[in-house]
Amino acid sequence: MSIAGNVGLADLPRICPLISRRVQTSVGSDETRVVTVGEVQFGGGHPVVIAGPCAVESEEQTLAVARAVKAAGAEMLRGGAFKPRTSPHDFQGLGVEGLRILSKARRETGLPVVTEVMDPRLVETVAEHADMLQIGSRNMQNYPLLVEAGKSGKPVLLKRGMAASLCEWLGAAEYIAKEGNLEIVLCERGIKAFPAGEYSRNVLDLGVVPAVKKETFLPIIVDPSHATGVASMVEGASCGAIEFGSDGLLIEVACDEPGAIRPKCDAAQAINPRTLENIVRFIESRGASRMWRKAHVV
Amino acid sequence: MSIAGNVGLADLPRICPLISRRVQTSVGSDETRVVTVGEVQFGGGHPVVIAGPCAVESEEQTLAVARAVKAAGAEMLRGGAFKPRTSPHDFQGLGVEGLRILSKARRETGLPVVTEVMDPRLVETVAEHADMLQIGSRNMQNYPLLVEAGKSGKPVLLKRGMAASLCEWLGAAEYIAKEGNLEIVLCERGIKAFPAGEYSRNVLDLGVVPAVKKETFLPIIVDPSHATGVASMVEGASCGAIEFGSDGLLIEVACDEPGAIRPKCDAAQAINPRTLENIVRFIESRGASRMWRKAHVV
Amino acid sequence: MSIAGNVGLADLPRICPLISRRVQTSVGSDETRVVTVGEVQFGGGHPVVIAGPCAVESEEQTLAVARAVKAAGAEMLRGGAFKPRTSPHDFQGLGVEGLRILSKARRETGLPVVTEVMDPRLVETVAEHADMLQIGSRNMQNYPLLVEAGKSGKPVLLKRGMAASLCEWLGAAEYIAKEGNLEIVLCERGIKAFPAGEYSRNVLDLGVVPAVKKETFLPIIVDPSHATGVASMVEGASCGAIEFGSDGLLIEVACDEPGAIRPKCDAAQAINPRTLENIVRFIESRGASRMWRKAHVV
Amino acid sequence: MSIAGNVGLADLPRICPLISRRVQTSVGSDETRVVTVGEVQFGGGHPVVIAGPCAVESEEQTLAVARAVKAAGAEMLRGGAFKPRTSPHDFQGLGVEGLRILSKARRETGLPVVTEVMDPRLVETVAEHADMLQIGSRNMQNYPLLVEAGKSGKPVLLKRGMAASLCEWLGAAEYIAKEGNLEIVLCERGIKAFPAGEYSRNVLDLGVVPAVKKETFLPIIVDPSHATGVASMVEGASCGAIEFGSDGLLIEVACDEPGAIRPKCDAAQAINPRTLENIVRFIESRGASRMWRKAHVV
Repeated sequence: MSIAGNVGLADLPRICPLISRRVQTSVGSDETRVVTVGEVQFGGGHPVVIAGPCAVESEEQTLAVARAVKAAGAEMLRGGAFKPRTSPHDFQGLGVEGLRILSKARRETGLPVVTEVMDPRLVETVAEHADMLQIGSRNMQNYPLLVEAGKSGKPVLLKRGMAASLCEWLGAAEYIAKEGNLEIVLCERGIKAFPAGEYSRNVLDLGVVPAVKKETFLPIIVDPSHATGVASMVEGASCGAIEFGSDGLLIEVACDEPGAIRPKCDAAQAINPRTLENIVRFIESRGASRMWRKAHVV
Repeated sequence: MSIAGNVGLADLPRICPLISRRVQTSVGSDETRVVTVGEVQFGGGHPVVIAGPCAVESEEQTLAVARAVKAAGAEMLRGGAFKPRTSPHDFQGLGVEGLRILSKARRETGLPVVTEVMDPRLVETVAEHADMLQIGSRNMQNYPLLVEAGKSGKPVLLKRGMAASLCEWLGAAEYIAKEGNLEIVLCERGIKAFPAGEYSRNVLDLGVVPAVKKETFLPIIVDPSHATGVASMVEGASCGAIEFGSDGLLIEVACDEPGAIRPKCDAAQAINPRTLENIVRFIESRGASRMWRKAHVV
Repeated sequence: MSIAGNVGLADLPRICPLISRRVQTSVGSDETRVVTVGEVQFGGGHPVVIAGPCAVESEEQTLAVARAVKAAGAEMLRGGAFKPRTSPHDFQGLGVEGLRILSKARRETGLPVVTEVMDPRLVETVAEHADMLQIGSRNMQNYPLLVEAGKSGKPVLLKRGMAASLCEWLGAAEYIAKEGNLEIVLCERGIKAFPAGEYSRNVLDLGVVPAVKKETFLPIIVDPSHATGVASMVEGASCGAIEFGSDGLLIEVACDEPGAIRPKCDAAQAINPRTLENIVRFIESRGASRMWRKAHVV
Repeated sequence: MSIAGNVGLADLPRICPLISRRVQTSVGSDETRVVTVGEVQFGGGHPVVIAGPCAVESEEQTLAVARAVKAAGAEMLRGGAFKPRTSPHDFQGLGVEGLRILSKARRETGLPVVTEVMDPRLVETVAEHADMLQIGSRNMQNYPLLVEAGKSGKPVLLKRGMAASLCEWLGAAEYIAKEGNLEIVLCERGIKAFPAGEYSRNVLDLGVVPAVKKETFLPIIVDPSHATGVASMVEGASCGAIEFGSDGLLIEVACDEPGAIRPKCDAAQAINPRTLENIVRFIESRGASRMWRKAHVV
């Protein structure tokens, strides 16, 4: 009774030879290959904090959040111009206009920008405005999109699918690598599992972080916002991810001073800039210990 | 502690008003809207058997399987020309050449053809050769693809994502409906759940069949091949699906007479034509009882 | 990076040598060992229907349901005297008084009785009144209870744990077998998996039925009531289970004639006697086909 | 289409009024009720480290590990005398002899002892030797056992079931509370979810920690050993749990100096005493920050 399609970690050298640590031995056996976006380095030892609004909803809101996250210590800006939504009747993002707003926010703050692309026909357009392309969970196995992202030569942030095994996730990364693009950063964002939905949006699977480090040299970061879906859990999840060895964080932030605009999209998981600052401080305080542990964990 | 993105069946009228039974009351409260592909009717009372190879691997193999499934009683032909594979180094399908082979198989057997499209840029090309477009599990939330499939006006077979809730699945169907295309057939194909992989590829979730019938008027069929991943389970799964109210089946078949070509792709889940014939006979024998039950189940 | 506690089907000969088909070869390679309860035979080719109330709530209610399920064609009576409930403040069953009512129902209808035992100190008492001991899902790995059930010599109905792998389930059965008691019938009752709770209580995992038949010679039945939690799904689930090769069904029934007492416990999943009759008729109509398939499935 | 048995957090005041924060308002709205075991305090602000062998396998091994974990800074000793194992043919623990060894280890080290009890008939015996009774995952819903543990008056460590919802877990704790025993500490230990088994034993669900703190005033600790099943993940998981607000840790340790005895049971998840020391040091270094966060998280 053999089972079609059943693969395990032992199959990784065959599934993804270009990014499997067991095949590609030029990167040291416990090293991470550094991915550079502007002056930001993923996998270089210092965890990278990417923060910003869920969606780009207006220029005013985006610039306000961008300034706030920069002030709080974030090194990159996130924000969705094209938003994949469960319902086609919900706000789908500002599209190209959103990309222009992000470009403006980068010019003003100096923060490199990562934003999602969902359509292979728009990879080029998004790549003109973004410093890094995000492939979202829903599109982890959208292979034509992965191929175009690979061809673009831009750094790619590849989120894990909602129920993806590690094999499937690394197989998806291999589609990008096959186009000659190794500038790939993985992003864990919670998986669907019973009892997801009872008290959190998804189940944050931090165990995948050391597993990724064991199997590939690609950097991996964690999105505590989608993993929990609950703003009050984001700080704990962020610090927990850092302790588990994450190379960075992708966090949704909304301004909350009097008069600030509330987000239309996923407001319940957005933290405020002060909480972001706590997370940044935690990372700084943990710097030395992490280095030490890194040398021993894998 | 509210949770971002948490939705339930009560939200369906908002998420998918065009296909929610509670909003669209022109279809009777326990009726299924019939979707027609050539002379085949989904939701018309008689379950439709779609069968064929996993992948179109050659003209010879495809025609042999097409003839065999027609002889066994199948009413439509399936077969992948574009194959989404976990590894980019695995066989990706014959592409446009595969579409031509499918067209030839249709001409020869008279069976309408359903085949997968993964790339929004190829919807038009695939639509020229196929009678029905299949959106696979990996692409259930590939919204640009859903929009193009909707615009094509072709009937669409929308498979459930590997961990999709009913809300997410119907939300995806709504993207097609929003383009003015209501020719949508849903397809359950097993979900990822512990202990998937121990003795079956996925966990066949037949309970979603009556749930779909309760919430929408779209027809729903079941793919027992991917749900189980084990050829010896396919007959049981097929008959079980029919008893649960499925409007049809999507089954992978390989020929097994001496000298027949073994499939390169998912061979472990392909049944032979004789088993397909048993399934077709089961459906015929159950015709009257199903009609009776249909009137009482919802 | 080896993982503690990770086992798979290949470990079954070690985990459960007494019930593994690969070790115990005296039972034919595709035969089921028959378990007899009174005149009822599990695994003898004809699926056994066990039906009755969720809980024994009163003599009047229990006798009414017992008569109704007998009239509908059930061969055994189920009913809980000791009820495991999520909250200690909910009705916990009538206890020993409930056992006496079940005994009375047996005397009156002639139906053998299966009822749950949760406490190893009560196995003897329950065994005095019951023809078969049920071990519930919550107690699948309550090993002292399994040992006492084994020692009792009574036939045991062992439900699958809510997230049990096949290895864990058969390991639990082995605890009973180790006490010299091979009168074991397994019972699939749905697993917890995302999206359990959205439209059904659990996800009915019918694929485990042929997997059980492959790995052990023990009979296996299915509980469609707990698997779905929705009365309108029970008939479909029952017939689906039979088609998948189940050796029987365990179904919750409530009377619904005017003036009938509504159950306090799990009313939403109880079917009425007419629906039970449909299920019994389905089984009769499928008799010959099943026999034929049985010889071919494993 | 209502679903039997479907409950959510809104039902907690009814399911577990004795431990629901919304019902029992004598404990402050963001305070944890302190549970005291000897001089150890759970929920008092300083996370408690419990460490020791998986199983008590011999006096020599147990004393060696007990001394080592004390030297590393652990405040309590764990060790199984009664071991629930998947197979009845595997080592089941030393039983009462194991309890005597644990008593001796306590006398020698001064560390209070927590050990598992699986049988309601043995609660009294175990309570004579242990300072705290552990109810394991397999027995989370073994209600007669919970009742006896409640009656014993001893502090109880209640592990989460392998697929338990928060409602079910707190319902189980309520069984203990109903006997007048509020000395309950909860313990998250990973849940079964796809892809458990691919790279870790279970999926550590840290999101449940703040959710527990929101819904009840009971302390909660985390078992990183069973959650991951992989020794090299335990330090990250431990520190992550602390950052998520855990009131303590339950860790399996084995000695690894030359000549040390390797454990028979779950060796792959046991860390060595040096790694334990790192974890203890991390907790000390994080003391002040945690206090600060505690006041803001809930």
